[in-house]
Amino acid sequence: MAAFRHRTRVMFQHCDPAAIVFYPRYFEMINEVVETFFGDAVGWSFRQMHSVERVGVPMGRIETEFHASSRLGDALDWMLFVTRIGGASLDFTLRAASCDEARLTARGTLVLVDLDRMASIRWPDDKRATLTSYKEDEAP
Amino acid sequence: MAAFRHRTRVMFQHCDPAAIVFYPRYFEMINEVVETFFGDAVGWSFRQMHSVERVGVPMGRIETEFHASSRLGDALDWMLFVTRIGGASLDFTLRAASCDEARLTARGTLVLVDLDRMASIRWPDDKRATLTSYKEDEAP
Amino acid sequence: MAAFRHRTRVMFQHCDPAAIVFYPRYFEMINEVVETFFGDAVGWSFRQMHSVERVGVPMGRIETEFHASSRLGDALDWMLFVTRIGGASLDFTLRAASCDEARLTARGTLVLVDLDRMASIRWPDDKRATLTSYKEDEAP
Amino acid sequence: MAAFRHRTRVMFQHCDPAAIVFYPRYFEMINEVVETFFGDAVGWSFRQMHSVERVGVPMGRIETEFHASSRLGDALDWMLFVTRIGGASLDFTLRAASCDEARLTARGTLVLVDLDRMASIRWPDDKRATLTSYKEDEAP
Repeated sequence: MAAFRHRTRVMFQHCDPAAIVFYPRYFEMINEVVETFFGDAVGWSFRQMHSVERVGVPMGRIETEFHASSRLGDALDWMLFVTRIGGASLDFTLRAASCDEARLTARGTLVLVDLDRMASIRWPDDKRATLTSYKEDEAP
Repeated sequence: MAAFRHRTRVMFQHCDPAAIVFYPRYFEMINEVVETFFGDAVGWSFRQMHSVERVGVPMGRIETEFHASSRLGDALDWMLFVTRIGGASLDFTLRAASCDEARLTARGTLVLVDLDRMASIRWPDDKRATLTSYKEDEAP
Repeated sequence: MAAFRHRTRVMFQHCDPAAIVFYPRYFEMINEVVETFFGDAVGWSFRQMHSVERVGVPMGRIETEFHASSRLGDALDWMLFVTRIGGASLDFTLRAASCDEARLTARGTLVLVDLDRMASIRWPDDKRATLTSYKEDEAP
Repeated sequence: MAAFRHRTRVMFQHCDPAAIVFYPRYFEMINEVVETFFGDAVGWSFRQMHSVERVGVPMGRIETEFHASSRLGDALDWMLFVTRIGGASLDFTLRAASCDEARLTARGTLVLVDLDRMASIRWPDDKRATLTSYKEDEAP
């Protein structure tokens, strides 16, 4: 199955005095990719999750390698795929590239939680099925 | 002449513990609208301005009224028009609405500056002509 | 009565590719000054307000003049005073300076709201009394 | 040798609609701890580095585990220690806790770069000596 793809652009607000992306802004972008993935691919918008069903997907851990700097105006092509689905967790890999030059690779674990109890809960079966369709064996 | 229009969406990263847009994030959005206006409408991208020509358009003043709260997932329709063009300055009005409900009105003044000397400079004639085409008398 | 004073420092995260404070970050700082004012001067922390009493103080309007740029490492001395106290609203003036050079002046209106009903409510008498002690006639 | 210690507070601007720290904001805090470490402990402020000597310390990689949520108003006690010093790189471990409850652990690699050439350069001997004094074997 193909990965989920999303394009963003490096705006002025993302750049630091060295005129490259300030790395904490990458995590805002990563959150945007994950949020867009849930809304557009899984059919479970953050609005529906947070405001209606009172569930969320906080990050449990994330490791990120920054391969090359991104500059003001660069288009970033994001690719997300699922590497493991646990009872309440989801491992994913995210890659960003610009004009085929790798910019970053992130590997993280999300956990589905009940926001009112702040306790992990199992993926609903229909969401699990959709998430599975984005599962890939990571290329070596 | 029609105003410049741009649509953004309220993402998780914009929202505060009351689940509405944290108002400093509106100014990031306002900057995005201005940046997109310069890149797409004026044909003068921030990358070209900052990295190549070493000019910028810092905000000299901005006044903003927040008419109603925006919530996670809301689409925001932005409308920017020019109200006055000075030698080195530009007055603009920006409105954001969601489903025709007004969310904010901002009126600001940008100044074109030489970034190395941090001194104001005159608008180039071709840019001034384009900016003029977005000039409107503000509706009463 | 003296104004409320607070010092912040311009960090890397506040600065843009021109190596000066990106103006939306000033609004994060303004929020920090207001939050610190409520917590330290009024004795009503945002945690207590939001998480316990379910009230908030969203900004109704704010107008800001940027007098001079702030650079990485600058200390900013903030001064907040109250200019008017309404039933549910508060007008304030905020000034930031660095080594006595004015950087910005902001004038805004906060509104006390019940977060669950998103409706304005009256200032409690004890808070109103404290707020009044920070009231000043603005210097001409 | 003792680790470098720094305290920050969870402000409104760091919190998401679940009223806990939005994880990208942790990376802004991590950058603040590193920036304060360089300025206060190493004696090499980011202003001196970026604006005068034209060097920087971009993050090459960072892995972060989030142990427990942080809430509005929490004090965060940060502890940074150096785990390896390479020719141009620095490995570090950062821990944040609130009232002795672990909140996050981050392990990262910074690289010293010449900003004009965007090429890595060796740590100056005096800075290397100071960095070495913050070196610790990580507890098992």
